[in-house]
Amino acid sequence: MTSEQAPVESPPPLSKYSKRVTVDSISGRPDGGAGLIGQRVVVGGWVKSSREFKLAAPPQPPAAGGPKDISCVEVLQTKLPFFRSIIKVFGGEQRTRDKIDSIIPKPPQPSISILQIGDGSCVSSLQPSLPERKEKHTIELKAEKLLHLGTVDQDRYPLSKKRLPLELLRDSAHFRPRTTTVASVMRIRNGFTQAAFAFFDENGFLHVQAPVTTVTDASGGATESLLRVEATLPDGVKAETIRASIKEKSKKIEELKRSGSNKEALAAAVQDLKKTTELAELVEGEQRRTRTYLSASGRLHLESHASALGNVCSFGPRFQACSPESRRVLAEMWMVEIEVAFSELEDSMQCAMDFLKSICRWIMKSSVEDLKFMEKRVDKHVVDRLQLIAEGPFEKITYTEAIKVLKQAKNERTIEWGAPLSEEHEAVLVEEIYKKPVIVYNHPKELKPFNARCNDDGETCAAFDVIVPKVGTVIRGSQSEERLNMLSGRIKELGLEKKQYEWYLDLRRHGAVKCSGFSFAFDTFVLYATGLNDVRDATPFPRSIGQPNN
Amino acid sequence: MTSEQAPVESPPPLSKYSKRVTVDSISGRPDGGAGLIGQRVVVGGWVKSSREFKLAAPPQPPAAGGPKDISCVEVLQTKLPFFRSIIKVFGGEQRTRDKIDSIIPKPPQPSISILQIGDGSCVSSLQPSLPERKEKHTIELKAEKLLHLGTVDQDRYPLSKKRLPLELLRDSAHFRPRTTTVASVMRIRNGFTQAAFAFFDENGFLHVQAPVTTVTDASGGATESLLRVEATLPDGVKAETIRASIKEKSKKIEELKRSGSNKEALAAAVQDLKKTTELAELVEGEQRRTRTYLSASGRLHLESHASALGNVCSFGPRFQACSPESRRVLAEMWMVEIEVAFSELEDSMQCAMDFLKSICRWIMKSSVEDLKFMEKRVDKHVVDRLQLIAEGPFEKITYTEAIKVLKQAKNERTIEWGAPLSEEHEAVLVEEIYKKPVIVYNHPKELKPFNARCNDDGETCAAFDVIVPKVGTVIRGSQSEERLNMLSGRIKELGLEKKQYEWYLDLRRHGAVKCSGFSFAFDTFVLYATGLNDVRDATPFPRSIGQPNN
Repeated sequence: MTSEQAPVESPPPLSKYSKRVTVDSISGRPDGGAGLIGQRVVVGGWVKSSREFKLAAPPQPPAAGGPKDISCVEVLQTKLPFFRSIIKVFGGEQRTRDKIDSIIPKPPQPSISILQIGDGSCVSSLQPSLPERKEKHTIELKAEKLLHLGTVDQDRYPLSKKRLPLELLRDSAHFRPRTTTVASVMRIRNGFTQAAFAFFDENGFLHVQAPVTTVTDASGGATESLLRVEATLPDGVKAETIRASIKEKSKKIEELKRSGSNKEALAAAVQDLKKTTELAELVEGEQRRTRTYLSASGRLHLESHASALGNVCSFGPRFQACSPESRRVLAEMWMVEIEVAFSELEDSMQCAMDFLKSICRWIMKSSVEDLKFMEKRVDKHVVDRLQLIAEGPFEKITYTEAIKVLKQAKNERTIEWGAPLSEEHEAVLVEEIYKKPVIVYNHPKELKPFNARCNDDGETCAAFDVIVPKVGTVIRGSQSEERLNMLSGRIKELGLEKKQYEWYLDLRRHGAVKCSGFSFAFDTFVLYATGLNDVRDATPFPRSIGQPNN
Repeated sequence: MTSEQAPVESPPPLSKYSKRVTVDSISGRPDGGAGLIGQRVVVGGWVKSSREFKLAAPPQPPAAGGPKDISCVEVLQTKLPFFRSIIKVFGGEQRTRDKIDSIIPKPPQPSISILQIGDGSCVSSLQPSLPERKEKHTIELKAEKLLHLGTVDQDRYPLSKKRLPLELLRDSAHFRPRTTTVASVMRIRNGFTQAAFAFFDENGFLHVQAPVTTVTDASGGATESLLRVEATLPDGVKAETIRASIKEKSKKIEELKRSGSNKEALAAAVQDLKKTTELAELVEGEQRRTRTYLSASGRLHLESHASALGNVCSFGPRFQACSPESRRVLAEMWMVEIEVAFSELEDSMQCAMDFLKSICRWIMKSSVEDLKFMEKRVDKHVVDRLQLIAEGPFEKITYTEAIKVLKQAKNERTIEWGAPLSEEHEAVLVEEIYKKPVIVYNHPKELKPFNARCNDDGETCAAFDVIVPKVGTVIRGSQSEERLNMLSGRIKELGLEKKQYEWYLDLRRHGAVKCSGFSFAFDTFVLYATGLNDVRDATPFPRSIGQPNN
């Protein structure tokens, strides 16, 4: 680097564990990267788009150590199409211009390629011209050396086409985060993950990893079908086969005894039988797992830890059978779940509101560029919608009030007390009547899990749903029934298998605590925040009924 | 509160969402709670131990608003045994004393109970006397009112006995966090969760929630058996039954057509057939799920996102078949997994070291009281062991060197190149030979998953294990094979079903990137940090082969 062009400051920090500088640490700077002029850095990324121009003469090797006033990213010894490259780039000079074409030399041999290179660290790409907002100045980057190059087969690569609709991208879940839109969605998911954890830490929640495999149906029979787990056995060994083999071996031992054969042969046969018997026990142990299910909710298990540690939380996958057509629900979804000891319905409704406000404020600060992109490309109301939760009030009405209000609203005369609110009813409440998030609470007990606390009216229970525009219910919460006789009564009423709930009933038998909490549908909420319409586009590898292909 | 005894400062903040003050915010203060003398607070907790004394006369009601010089926690209108109470306590005066007994009035009617109340927020309990370190002064707490009381059936409550061994507590996974030891373990787990997330955030890792249900065997056949998932169907409906019904209905339609019956009956029959066919498709869709497995590793899926976003991480449950006798491995374990694009083996070994050092430093700062407790009660080397990772160097040797060194060590002449290191071999390396954490790398390719990058020698691959004292391997990492022909070759060599890896091979066909990463066995590492000997005691609801009971 020549002294007259000494860099303004030291180079941006290397991305740890990959010896490269992220695009975000260049283009995400307040100066748009201007302070880095004269620097030489290594970047790694994927070519988002490329244009090729012919040059009049072979490109000059760069003057020893000195950056030149060049007009575009120059890539040496390479042929398009190619997809990925690590290139050494160093900054050129700032210069004013209007269009990139105006500064390209007359097109002859050999070629210069202008590339846009993104590495997933931000929406922006590294490119020869920076956006207009930089006072129409541009920073020019010159590729000095290609360190590594991964090609693509352009005819077969699904992302070769520009602006592929999200529906088509679903078949390429392993490629789609390479698109600007899905990469933004994934960064927004990351932001919400951080936001949720920050909320937990600020409010003294302890992380408890609730189990995924369970024998306890947390809904108490409210979900129609559960996903069952069984262990597959090596080579399809079956317990019956082994049992048959045991019979045969026992017979052989009897024969050996009768025939008075030598002791060694008998001992070996006995030893062999012992091994087979052990295997049979192992296999049968595995087969008993067939009654194990994938958990639909971790809240029952969390409650046992809240009943010892106070405030606890969990973030993990939960499972449900769902229609393959659903746009808001998947068979495998990540849920944030919390459970608070010494708390009642009112407390967890407050917690749910605070939680939603907190994560919306966080994402509005942490993901400005990604939200702007989603606003521009997907849904112009993205930020307004976040603002609605972050700053505005929530409406809080009982289920009974909700039914009354819905009956008064035109076209909603069909609904009757006792029925669940449909997606359409929810939309009328939050989008037409109240025009803000609505908490509906005190539902008929038949609509809620078996352990929601019965209210004094004998008909409703201490449960609540937080309903937001666009995606409907994102949080379901309740206060648990802490009275042993009431809870046993509900289990009997619903015809549930009492045995599987004994451990949960134990929490009432010994040191019962008032407890409340909620589940937050993380993936569904990403739809709210991104403006997307299908939860399959907001989830890294969506799982619905039918076999996943990865 | 009387003016002459005005509190030194405002009361401690309420624990959010439960309208109480945590024990930690009283006894965890640098002054041990002295600054709160004269305050009235609400606490919620569980009685850890209790003693009852008879009084000479009925206790006087507290003087209006004024705290008295009282000598112990006084609980009104209650009978022991009881387990849980919310009590209003307010501070008495500081006073010197040696034994609590010396200040108890002569025992007559009615009773005074001295309680130790813990709420899971810290190791300490609220109790009438503070520890000796407070210059032999004590702060006395007086319970003014019991707001709520949950009783226990002392004969049936498993925690009625003192100092129950951890093995026996395993049958009461839903109660055991109420013991001081398991509560400490759970808080240490929480500390590690926070530590891991802090490391990710500091180093630019994006959280990607890798799926739990999958058709891709990440080990490439290296694990013997996988846990299979299938959907249970309402009422045991079977596809064959429906198919039979479809046949019958089709026949009926043919008959209707032949007999020239009225159009309405025919239309109804056709409509009915259509519905049944739809049901059959749904059921068969669910049955196809029988080939879905619970993921043993999320790294393949993470790699697809690293190949677009750079550094990604995941924290979630992973599954494996394991011996029910294993003390270090469970069928369901939480794993931290990371994957870094543009990185090689050396990078992820560095990352693994930095990660371990970072979380050990974090826990030594965040969990001082819990670690002290574990040191006292479970294992006096707890902090030394954390220090060993946090501050000391790691040894880094190839697998070949490890075999050579083990052969030289006495009693280790049995091991041959090509065999996996046993737990005993690992112990010899880290505890006898090097006396520090050891990274073993470049294993024979047969010992590692199919996608570990082949080294130039054709025999070893770019993989590594981080082995620590006491618990053995806690991290397994590798650089992925980015060369399409090499990876296809391995899949063929191992006789794997190529179809299930097509999407993964795609990552090599289009824009291949060098990638490396690792899996960290979270639950196993909690053993290292707590001194416990069985992973079942370090996991909220341990799952091994056999049916869980909750």
